[in-house]
Amino acid sequence: MAREQLRSALIAGSTIVGLSIGLGGIAAADEYVQYRDFFEPLPAMPPIPAVNSMTEARVELGRMLFFEPRISASGVISCATCHNPALGYTDRIPRAVGHDGQVGERNTPTVLNSGFFEAQFWDGRAATLEEQALGPIEAEVEMAMPLEAALERITEFAIYVEKFHAAFPGDDDPVHADNVALSLAAFQRTLNTPNSPLDLWLVGDDGAMSESQKRGMVAFVERGCLGCHAGPALTDSQFHVIQTPGSTDLGRFLVTGEEHDRHAFKTPTLRNVALTYPYFNNGEVASLDEAIVVMGQEMLGIELEGQELEDLVAFMHALTGAIPQFPVPPLP
Amino acid sequence: MAREQLRSALIAGSTIVGLSIGLGGIAAADEYVQYRDFFEPLPAMPPIPAVNSMTEARVELGRMLFFEPRISASGVISCATCHNPALGYTDRIPRAVGHDGQVGERNTPTVLNSGFFEAQFWDGRAATLEEQALGPIEAEVEMAMPLEAALERITEFAIYVEKFHAAFPGDDDPVHADNVALSLAAFQRTLNTPNSPLDLWLVGDDGAMSESQKRGMVAFVERGCLGCHAGPALTDSQFHVIQTPGSTDLGRFLVTGEEHDRHAFKTPTLRNVALTYPYFNNGEVASLDEAIVVMGQEMLGIELEGQELEDLVAFMHALTGAIPQFPVPPLP
Repeated sequence: MAREQLRSALIAGSTIVGLSIGLGGIAAADEYVQYRDFFEPLPAMPPIPAVNSMTEARVELGRMLFFEPRISASGVISCATCHNPALGYTDRIPRAVGHDGQVGERNTPTVLNSGFFEAQFWDGRAATLEEQALGPIEAEVEMAMPLEAALERITEFAIYVEKFHAAFPGDDDPVHADNVALSLAAFQRTLNTPNSPLDLWLVGDDGAMSESQKRGMVAFVERGCLGCHAGPALTDSQFHVIQTPGSTDLGRFLVTGEEHDRHAFKTPTLRNVALTYPYFNNGEVASLDEAIVVMGQEMLGIELEGQELEDLVAFMHALTGAIPQFPVPPLP
Repeated sequence: MAREQLRSALIAGSTIVGLSIGLGGIAAADEYVQYRDFFEPLPAMPPIPAVNSMTEARVELGRMLFFEPRISASGVISCATCHNPALGYTDRIPRAVGHDGQVGERNTPTVLNSGFFEAQFWDGRAATLEEQALGPIEAEVEMAMPLEAALERITEFAIYVEKFHAAFPGDDDPVHADNVALSLAAFQRTLNTPNSPLDLWLVGDDGAMSESQKRGMVAFVERGCLGCHAGPALTDSQFHVIQTPGSTDLGRFLVTGEEHDRHAFKTPTLRNVALTYPYFNNGEVASLDEAIVVMGQEMLGIELEGQELEDLVAFMHALTGAIPQFPVPPLP
């Protein structure tokens, strides 16, 4: 509860007694110890919903489907095209490129640690990974494949049919869309990035973060970034109105029709943020320091600059964890 | 030399004394031993040209470039899009889909074991992997990226510039097209698939191939398939006129203008042929058995059917080796 109180105090803009950012000075490690209370090391696994037992068979099937391009209309676009494992499970271009080279409206969010999000997509139109999974297969500007056609294609491969039976043993006719979604979600819950410098520091490795990263962490807390970027994935999974450079996107308003959701977007995770450039809903901001400046102006009404800005950038780099490493699965 | 004589005899259509296909019968392993002379186990590495030392740094850089989508005009197509590691380093669709969803004229050849080929592309317009590497980056229907623009994009990343210096230590200004080609070629020479059932059998593991596969091997030799599909990669890297179903492609004629090259195509490797469907220059044939029937008719003037056809299909499966397994490299 002490943590919650501290966080509320921060959000309300109060100052915490006894803390100073200590710009330019060299602080001893113990100066920062109390900041451990503001953060959580990434758990080994996100919450596993009761409706989707995370069995090995289900994860394996989901991994195959994630890399499967033949469930797209062109036959060459898979989930991994935009959520590219080489690129932090995103595409590192401003807006997603999909079927026939069409360019979407939004920047591809990473799926790393997405099991920790309580809302999916920039506008939260899906609450869970299960609800999210099928959208991009059918979307005209992404994989452009009607689900029925995708299922027919899958059914052509005896190995897939076997794998569906293994993953859903209680289901007599398991090759259907719901099970595609369950498998993809189960696989995505394995894409977590523990052991970032912050995580290591939180569990007692004082040298895991540099002095600059620690000062950045203090600024992150003191300036109120933690008001939205909190919890294990450093997102509240809530929606906040923000005018990002060059954006006319109505955001969550398009989902709810509520005035207060006009130009509101889900708080993105900050885990691996150094890998998931470019930034914001439209990918118009290329660099971390520019993104931090925009956040200061738009969300906090402050100018972040100089050493503090440098330290914040350094702290963002402390959020890069261990990316899952595995060979691309062979497909039938 | 005995092997060469046997092969020449076969190509000339003579019958080898004392061999019989033995359809339907069960042959003892030693019946097949003499067939070992017709094949070569895949060497651990293909020939390494003197112009391209295969250093670890060069292979590592080539691996990164192979998976790098940002050297395409759209930013999402890499070598690995069509030469997909999940799909036997091909795309398993009839004809390649590239920039803006354009469909090319030909089926994507696998790059597995391509270091063993003495000609590249279906029409052999490149002799080496080094000559081949840059074509698809620039091709309008593939990655559609002028080389200068690709190099500019690479130069934006300090890590790439470092890696080029490490891979080409004698080169003061190493980020240029020739070095992209050298790196990609060096990496591709690592994509070999040893230890197929045939390879294991060739080095003395009698049980590595089934009886049907061994009978298929005999048919493969006796019927003359070995006339073109010979050597470590089971291709002569030569060009042969063939009318494949539905094809109007002039093939090598487009490169040489020679009449005898009209509708001639390079003999494709048969290694991993079970993984590299669909078949032929235009990918119009979906299954191995259908492809074998076409080959019998077109190249040998015979009808392959029944048990012999089944055995030949089984033998093709004996050519699937160990696919290289490695995580997708993280890119900057």
